[in-house]
Amino acid sequence: MPKKIQILVIGHNTNGCTEEHSKIAYETGAEVAKSGSVLISGGLGGVMLAACHGAHDANGLTVGIIPQKDASEANEYCDVVIPTGMGLMRDFLNSHSADGIIIIGGGSGTLSEICAAYMDKKPMVSIRNMGGVTQQFIDNYVDHRKNIKIIGVDTPKQAVDKILELITASK
Amino acid sequence: MPKKIQILVIGHNTNGCTEEHSKIAYETGAEVAKSGSVLISGGLGGVMLAACHGAHDANGLTVGIIPQKDASEANEYCDVVIPTGMGLMRDFLNSHSADGIIIIGGGSGTLSEICAAYMDKKPMVSIRNMGGVTQQFIDNYVDHRKNIKIIGVDTPKQAVDKILELITASK
Amino acid sequence: MPKKIQILVIGHNTNGCTEEHSKIAYETGAEVAKSGSVLISGGLGGVMLAACHGAHDANGLTVGIIPQKDASEANEYCDVVIPTGMGLMRDFLNSHSADGIIIIGGGSGTLSEICAAYMDKKPMVSIRNMGGVTQQFIDNYVDHRKNIKIIGVDTPKQAVDKILELITASK
Amino acid sequence: MPKKIQILVIGHNTNGCTEEHSKIAYETGAEVAKSGSVLISGGLGGVMLAACHGAHDANGLTVGIIPQKDASEANEYCDVVIPTGMGLMRDFLNSHSADGIIIIGGGSGTLSEICAAYMDKKPMVSIRNMGGVTQQFIDNYVDHRKNIKIIGVDTPKQAVDKILELITASK
Repeated sequence: MPKKIQILVIGHNTNGCTEEHSKIAYETGAEVAKSGSVLISGGLGGVMLAACHGAHDANGLTVGIIPQKDASEANEYCDVVIPTGMGLMRDFLNSHSADGIIIIGGGSGTLSEICAAYMDKKPMVSIRNMGGVTQQFIDNYVDHRKNIKIIGVDTPKQAVDKILELITASK
Repeated sequence: MPKKIQILVIGHNTNGCTEEHSKIAYETGAEVAKSGSVLISGGLGGVMLAACHGAHDANGLTVGIIPQKDASEANEYCDVVIPTGMGLMRDFLNSHSADGIIIIGGGSGTLSEICAAYMDKKPMVSIRNMGGVTQQFIDNYVDHRKNIKIIGVDTPKQAVDKILELITASK
Repeated sequence: MPKKIQILVIGHNTNGCTEEHSKIAYETGAEVAKSGSVLISGGLGGVMLAACHGAHDANGLTVGIIPQKDASEANEYCDVVIPTGMGLMRDFLNSHSADGIIIIGGGSGTLSEICAAYMDKKPMVSIRNMGGVTQQFIDNYVDHRKNIKIIGVDTPKQAVDKILELITASK
Repeated sequence: MPKKIQILVIGHNTNGCTEEHSKIAYETGAEVAKSGSVLISGGLGGVMLAACHGAHDANGLTVGIIPQKDASEANEYCDVVIPTGMGLMRDFLNSHSADGIIIIGGGSGTLSEICAAYMDKKPMVSIRNMGGVTQQFIDNYVDHRKNIKIIGVDTPKQAVDKILELITASK
């Protein structure tokens, strides 16, 4: 049996995450779980928490890679916790751990994860109209290198379908 | 439902791992799985591979935290792979990710994980008569600080029983 | 004698660095040195190399924090080399090591350093009209948190004067 | 002009460092400086502080690579501070940054640095009769791989002469 696909969901943390973001993130987590993939996340609040919650409720496996050294800092829906003790430098571990990434809005932290993923040339999709600094990169490249284009989608279901398609194509 | 306990199994990598080490590591992985705990490991060869294999065959969940940036470097029995891209610095992530540690022999790499775990004050047990530089620390402290004593045990079953007891006592 | 101020200079690496960028980076490095500050950089090519070169020629001290594990990968103008072996995750170490940051154009790697510095709330100035994805953040915030505004300047001399002023104000 | 040699001095931190250790570390730092080499250290107390003090008084250049994210945590004799924000994982950065290592006693933290250096195959010398868990590895290998033998010496002057000889031989 081949290893399950690992999908990273990123976006607004507690500061910036609206009810709408949480709803979308919850559904995205659920879709990740239904697809049989493992949900990777930063393991804290906002979009991270909602995505873990959704995946958890859909009987998926959730992994939280957190900045702190103490596992108890992770949200309650993380089945596996990797407490890095490295602060936000863990954003790069999130990217390294992903076969593909789904973006739901997001500020500077999400942007650093996008930069890491872009430099890692990992497939990325972004749900449209979620706001944040990351919005501008939808259907676009992060820089002149044109490493990988971030593909815009409209729903959680589309996000998971599209990222799985991109992951398959990249192997 | 509370989060599952995460048990790290460390020891000789391919260089130094005998058939005896592999057998013991396989059984230890299986006991970790049977206890309902998650097996954390360095995700590569030798004791790491055998422990993952044992946990996998006993229907457990296995996580490999590897030095490389590419998940394909992990052994085939890792259900979840965290490719750190940090080289052997990942030894500290292994310790941070563990509620408790089981030691099966080991050289300099295992010793660096023991130092990390000792500084993290994580419970540790070591299976006796497995050789390696780590042998001397069984039923002993790593240094004058007496942070935490590494408890010697004789079998994989005893190792898992004892580490679970120590983890429970430490919470 | 108080410790010297540490100024990080970031921008286009070899891929993207024009003669104009190199000229500006060289002058910026020289101005950092003349101010009596230590030049911190990513230690590789493009803007990093030119800034080190300029600081070196002006008898300054240069530190290169590189992704590789081997010091010989640093450019020849680094007086001190910190070989991290962590890949591009080292972008966060660059930010942590800076009292203030000067930006000269830049792509996704520079942007990840800006995100790190923004989350660290480090003072930042950016030389105008140097292009790249980072251009848009001049005289702007990276996200809705408004942690710290990236101040636009027109010359290397202005960049160093302004960053020293901002560093002093932040202490 | 070729880059200066970078010598890492490690040993007991505040917990464990006696006046004798401090005296020896101070002299070692001074000898590193007199040799024209850069002193690398963990940037905190005990042997780290004394070595930085000695190098500083002998007009050497000192670099402190610290676990914390804030440079102000470094001891006052660090000319350059690299605040890693990675906790004790920074022990590996110390090793990566060293052309050679001088050991002055030490507990579990020093031992993790020795393991890192041993796996990096960096030349190491250790001053004799300084105690600590690291004592046993003098004139010995850390494990069965026999990567590199830690050479015992009796004085700070001998330590620096020997490490420079080993570094030259290793290039």
